[in-house]
Amino acid sequence: MKNEISIGLLGFGTVGSGVATILQQHQKDLRHKLGVEVSIKKVLIKNKNKDRLASLEPEVFTTDIEEILNDPSLDIIVEVMGGMDEAKEAIEKALAAGKQVVTANKDVMAEHGHELLKLADEKKCDLFYEASVAGGIPIIRTLEDGLASDRISSLMGIVNGTTNFILTKMKQENMSYEDALAEATALGYAEADPSSDVDGLDAARKMVILSSLAYSTEVHLDDVLIRGMKEIRDGDLELAQGFGYTMKMVGSSTKDEDGIEVAVEPIFLPDSHPLSSVNNEFNAVYIYGDAVGETMLYGPGAGSLPTATSVVSDVIAACRNILLEVNGKRVHAAQYERMIKPEDSRYSKYFHRLSVKDEIGVLSKLTAIYSEHGASLQSVKQHPAEDDGNSELVLLTHKISRQQHLDVIKELEGTASVISHYRIEGEESA
Amino acid sequence: MKNEISIGLLGFGTVGSGVATILQQHQKDLRHKLGVEVSIKKVLIKNKNKDRLASLEPEVFTTDIEEILNDPSLDIIVEVMGGMDEAKEAIEKALAAGKQVVTANKDVMAEHGHELLKLADEKKCDLFYEASVAGGIPIIRTLEDGLASDRISSLMGIVNGTTNFILTKMKQENMSYEDALAEATALGYAEADPSSDVDGLDAARKMVILSSLAYSTEVHLDDVLIRGMKEIRDGDLELAQGFGYTMKMVGSSTKDEDGIEVAVEPIFLPDSHPLSSVNNEFNAVYIYGDAVGETMLYGPGAGSLPTATSVVSDVIAACRNILLEVNGKRVHAAQYERMIKPEDSRYSKYFHRLSVKDEIGVLSKLTAIYSEHGASLQSVKQHPAEDDGNSELVLLTHKISRQQHLDVIKELEGTASVISHYRIEGEESA
Repeated sequence: MKNEISIGLLGFGTVGSGVATILQQHQKDLRHKLGVEVSIKKVLIKNKNKDRLASLEPEVFTTDIEEILNDPSLDIIVEVMGGMDEAKEAIEKALAAGKQVVTANKDVMAEHGHELLKLADEKKCDLFYEASVAGGIPIIRTLEDGLASDRISSLMGIVNGTTNFILTKMKQENMSYEDALAEATALGYAEADPSSDVDGLDAARKMVILSSLAYSTEVHLDDVLIRGMKEIRDGDLELAQGFGYTMKMVGSSTKDEDGIEVAVEPIFLPDSHPLSSVNNEFNAVYIYGDAVGETMLYGPGAGSLPTATSVVSDVIAACRNILLEVNGKRVHAAQYERMIKPEDSRYSKYFHRLSVKDEIGVLSKLTAIYSEHGASLQSVKQHPAEDDGNSELVLLTHKISRQQHLDVIKELEGTASVISHYRIEGEESA
Repeated sequence: MKNEISIGLLGFGTVGSGVATILQQHQKDLRHKLGVEVSIKKVLIKNKNKDRLASLEPEVFTTDIEEILNDPSLDIIVEVMGGMDEAKEAIEKALAAGKQVVTANKDVMAEHGHELLKLADEKKCDLFYEASVAGGIPIIRTLEDGLASDRISSLMGIVNGTTNFILTKMKQENMSYEDALAEATALGYAEADPSSDVDGLDAARKMVILSSLAYSTEVHLDDVLIRGMKEIRDGDLELAQGFGYTMKMVGSSTKDEDGIEVAVEPIFLPDSHPLSSVNNEFNAVYIYGDAVGETMLYGPGAGSLPTATSVVSDVIAACRNILLEVNGKRVHAAQYERMIKPEDSRYSKYFHRLSVKDEIGVLSKLTAIYSEHGASLQSVKQHPAEDDGNSELVLLTHKISRQQHLDVIKELEGTASVISHYRIEGEESA
């Protein structure tokens, strides 16, 4: 029986230093839980001259990744360096060398997760990635174990804290998008270049990871329909509120017999939906299982210690498996073939906001376009004409296919100008 | 390697029949996940003449529990019969015979969990009990695995769907307690005798189970301070709302260096607290971890299929362990000694609602009582006198000890009559 488990830590930034802190603070609890010492033996850093945690010996730090990957005494490699190619290569090498791997890297897991999980299966190694999605929320584990007995039919996630923070400020404090983004940047929630957050790419990667796991099906980044925050127009949030909806930047996916659909976009949710009260930088994932019904996990989506908590929980799981000699004993490979739904079998209710010339007959001309396409309307609301003789029209459809929606939007363009349009989701929920 | 795992099911009521349904519907997924067949071989029923699931052979049913407990071919015993003594004895016998056990029995786990978990440790058997708390919410697993790396400092749970349903109706639809209870009964949320729900005993048992696990410390039912819904007076919910609070029946527990405190009672939560938007029969558990910060799990707290989902997830975990030959390899016994906080080191803000004779000097007499006990006040609000010459006074304290609160309440009785009083919690949260 081993009496010590040794960790090689790749990266010592926000998450890496959090991992070191937690492992040190919880030595006693870890010994109780595992019966052995767990310690960090090597740490990859970029620059040897920066300040380091006093409690780690200076000898553990290295700038040479090969020194870590080739060290046979290390049991677990924790990849928290970020980035794509170098990180992916490091995970591959570690698995090839028979080491257990814990990663927090959503980019790598979203783009290469399927091949890496297959490699882990082949090498009989663990590859854990709880921290890659929604920081401190144990969502991967919940999908793998807690709901192992259920068939999940839909997932909705507020999985990007930056955009949720911005939308919360815009709604609660009537801030402009620019001011809210500036505050998010000042508070460290948004990066210097926020485009991957606000354009939806960050959330899309997380939805690829979650959907692949939830449906045991290969899902690729190309499969995700992405609309970013720049689609939002002034006044849209207020209009949503007027109808009893809250606008949220949501990653959603569903699976039924026609296949899977995955999207990241600003959508309208009923105010009573559990995701509607998830505010500020918090994340939440709402799961609908055939048997369990509605569940939701809520918590911090980022941050040094929350994310490190997930990494260390994975480390503990890998340690348990090492001690029981059962690493890599789970089937990771997807059970079902990739099958993405065509546009004409994706059904939703839609919100359409149009600007029209305030002329006699315009309303009947517009509504005729909807009926031609078989798209039935739930409500039509006309706002008084502005000085320029244009008035605004808000139409809520019943459930129509995405193809119908696209066709209507295209044909409307002759008669009206489409200011904005959103899907309405979550109305079946309690 | 085994190619089949056999289950003995004790009980075929709401949960038991749900377990059978899920196991049958998910045979294909289970084979993919586990690589073996999982099947129910024996089912304990009370009455042989009732209708049975057509898909289970009539021979599996028996009214003789010994026939199941003594069957050496069974690998896992699933206890969903409910009740106390017979169920506890069945679990003991199953463990003594070296069988893995899955139970949904909160009464047994709250009162005898510590001894049963020790027995499981000794016998190197699994004893899983996810379904004993908050039905379909994977809270036990989250505390054991997902947050394994964190130190949990407080837990708050809406863990009784009946009382949450009643309070939601009282708040949202201005129903009386009696009407809301009648509706809960009609919908099947409340039992014929609802006392264990509305008096808080059901929630207290769940808090014993959660707190023991979260703090790795023995917690007993006697340690829980319990106040039921009958403490709520007409007008209290409206008063809460006036101050921006929502009244919820909450089980709460905290641990710090002075020990553990556990309570189940109606409390005031800020409207912005995540638990405040948990409505109707839904349950939720809010966890504060030193590293992760705030997380919350939300979902169905009861019901046949949600609860059965948790049972079957436990069955899957036990099956995995059987196939890997690693059952009972976790330390279950509590790490820390039982240590319950004395009254004078339990701090909270309090809401006191008093009825006083509307006489000159009464306010200064009352506030003097607070200052004598070192209890500082955050706000005092007087309502106009009623016809009977009495007026109502609402006082919100700053943080004071429970002992101060009790002393003040006792001494007030000479000058005023205390209509109601509640703790105010959750204000540190986002």
